Amino acid sequence: METDLYFKLILTFGLVLIAARMGGEVAERYLKQPAVVGELLAGIVISPFAIGGLINDPVILTFATINGQLAQTGAQINGFTPMEIVSQIAVIALLFVAGLETDVRAFIRHGFTGAMVAIGGVILPFSLGYLVAMYFFPGIGTVGWLFIGAVLTATSIGITVRILMDMGRLSSREGTIILVGAVVDDIIGLVILSVVVGVAETGEFSVVAAIRTGLIGFGVWLGLLLIGLYGHKYISRYLLEPFKKSGTMPVLALIVAILIAYVVTLVGLHPVVGAYVGGLMLASTLEREEILNKTRPIMLFLSPFFFAYLGMQVDLVPIWAVIGPALALIVVATLGKIIGCFFPAKWAGKASNLGALIVGLGMVPRGEVGLIIAGVGLTHGVINRDIFGVAVAVSIITVLITPTMLKPFFKRQSAESEKAETKPSSLQDQS
Amino acid sequence: METDLYFKLILTFGLVLIAARMGGEVAERYLKQPAVVGELLAGIVISPFAIGGLINDPVILTFATINGQLAQTGAQINGFTPMEIVSQIAVIALLFVAGLETDVRAFIRHGFTGAMVAIGGVILPFSLGYLVAMYFFPGIGTVGWLFIGAVLTATSIGITVRILMDMGRLSSREGTIILVGAVVDDIIGLVILSVVVGVAETGEFSVVAAIRTGLIGFGVWLGLLLIGLYGHKYISRYLLEPFKKSGTMPVLALIVAILIAYVVTLVGLHPVVGAYVGGLMLASTLEREEILNKTRPIMLFLSPFFFAYLGMQVDLVPIWAVIGPALALIVVATLGKIIGCFFPAKWAGKASNLGALIVGLGMVPRGEVGLIIAGVGLTHGVINRDIFGVAVAVSIITVLITPTMLKPFFKRQSAESEKAETKPSSLQDQS
Repeated sequence: METDLYFKLILTFGLVLIAARMGGEVAERYLKQPAVVGELLAGIVISPFAIGGLINDPVILTFATINGQLAQTGAQINGFTPMEIVSQIAVIALLFVAGLETDVRAFIRHGFTGAMVAIGGVILPFSLGYLVAMYFFPGIGTVGWLFIGAVLTATSIGITVRILMDMGRLSSREGTIILVGAVVDDIIGLVILSVVVGVAETGEFSVVAAIRTGLIGFGVWLGLLLIGLYGHKYISRYLLEPFKKSGTMPVLALIVAILIAYVVTLVGLHPVVGAYVGGLMLASTLEREEILNKTRPIMLFLSPFFFAYLGMQVDLVPIWAVIGPALALIVVATLGKIIGCFFPAKWAGKASNLGALIVGLGMVPRGEVGLIIAGVGLTHGVINRDIFGVAVAVSIITVLITPTMLKPFFKRQSAESEKAETKPSSLQDQS
Repeated sequence: METDLYFKLILTFGLVLIAARMGGEVAERYLKQPAVVGELLAGIVISPFAIGGLINDPVILTFATINGQLAQTGAQINGFTPMEIVSQIAVIALLFVAGLETDVRAFIRHGFTGAMVAIGGVILPFSLGYLVAMYFFPGIGTVGWLFIGAVLTATSIGITVRILMDMGRLSSREGTIILVGAVVDDIIGLVILSVVVGVAETGEFSVVAAIRTGLIGFGVWLGLLLIGLYGHKYISRYLLEPFKKSGTMPVLALIVAILIAYVVTLVGLHPVVGAYVGGLMLASTLEREEILNKTRPIMLFLSPFFFAYLGMQVDLVPIWAVIGPALALIVVATLGKIIGCFFPAKWAGKASNLGALIVGLGMVPRGEVGLIIAGVGLTHGVINRDIFGVAVAVSIITVLITPTMLKPFFKRQSAESEKAETKPSSLQDQS
């Protein structure tokens, strides 16, 4: 019966969600880690490459991984599975809620620092990645090395947001700088991608085209942000007010964010960048709290799916074969971001050593944009399946290590600020 | 760039949702109809068979309709599109919330009446449908006539729930009887399907198999309901309590409902029947309100998608060619349900004439199960594409006319009960 297909889809969806939730719960309760770590690990565990492979059902296996088997048919990532669609909608809902929760004025106040952090955090990993690639993969040539460098540039907004949310630091000073940095370096990453693709296709390097792509993308993004900042009264009156009576106003806001997520792709940005700015646009409205109350459950329901699904793409076996270069790239990806972001945060943002270190650590997780770049390299035949596996490994490992690295420093910061708060209050007591 | 595919999916998803919301708003505000009518009409309007066809983009057209073009390749409904997946999850969320909102004790109190209503509402449309099919399509033979009769049997739980919700009558006496009836006739419909498929495949009619399918399906369903009714304390303690601390308890409840939706398919039930019983199971728990508060936004976000998507499958042009039999079947589908349910509601439920008429009218909408049966008939070559189009027309028209028919009677009932309430209160004034 053809309806079997639907039933199995429902099953796959339910199983992935329940595994993600269990993983999240275990991580929070027993490992004292953010839930997102547990969701990713749950994904790795139930992946068809691990215990999921015991399920002898081709339908479920196909639904659960990018085009069936990423490891075996890595080149076919231009296909898609239903589960990816849901995971795309999930990450849009996540970024929308993150945008809504952002303090827009603080976001703009830290704009310059964040941009500097982004640039520092792009230059170092890109150059180091290029050099490491040159050493380990001499055969793939300049274009290949450029691709690998590009893979290391962009911090994952989605993952960074979840880690900061789980740790309750999304709207801290460092959290805001990290977010600005993550948004800006995503834009830079996509500009680099278009340049590298240009080089791969024509053999020529076009500065003009690169600058144009970057300016248009950044301009559209900034334009949307400013519309929200200065036009929020009109957004409330003409877009949100009419839907208040039917109680669907928050849902409408999320739908609008989905449309914005698409619109920004027309100027070469990733949908998550648009979903985030969609949230930012509404963050100044009076309706913010109500929208948050009704859209947060949607995000809580869907977002574990995205992270578990990310984990499910990991096949540890082929990565083992390229463990040397993988480790080298993970090290330069991590240190490159920490150091590359530390100094701009310190100089441009006048952060303390501790604050600048937190910013650097928070910028470490790589994700969607890096994987997109690696995917494009793969389909262009510039990098092979093994190297693609390395890119996946970089993404997963940087995500997994970040919360553990961040935690002690956040703790130390809390302790210091408590100390700082105790002093003035004791002064007040004396007065 | 292969990511184009994702971007267009996001666009399609956003466009369908925004059209559905607009349609719902127009229906409520200007047509004074339930939002669901507007969502369905919005779907018909943006369908690739109507203005959606102006979008000259094969990707979007493929995403938006069942396997690209239902009208042209009707036989391929055993494929699926990403949009269908989302619409399946949407209807599960809807039925889960409906189950949660149901007064379980009232549901059981009206169980006998509802079952009688279901049986009356199956026998009449089935026999009339068989006769009409015999008259209009003499060439398709007994099995074909059986299929068309079967298509008319099952009331759509999803649509009935939405109509009752939109009208604020979900937990009224009549609303409860309608719900029980819709659940039971879905089970009967699926039993009839398995019998008819048996006849189509083997040419034999197996009473034993039919009774077995029915008993197992109904038994599992009732068992789950009773577990919820008598075991809700244990469900709270062992399933819900542990997830309260992380704030994900409501989400977990919905995930469990998704898994139950799959489990019931193993005994031949439709996932929506399982999602509804999943909600019923939790309706007696103390956590009910909290779960409702957090899952209702998820339902509000997703469910318009399901109804718009249903509307998008309608191609009015081929239906025009079979307008005669379509109208005849719509008439017997409507009158058959009204009359077939009126008498059981009156006799078994001791309802007033008005109450029994409301029950009959509420049972009119056909949907998912009827379309599944028609689809199976199509893939078995028992009915052709034109007749499949007729089945779609029956489903859409019965859905569209129901709210309009119900409204005046609900209004009269409200007026009468107000009158009844005024009298005792005036008596109290005198005392």
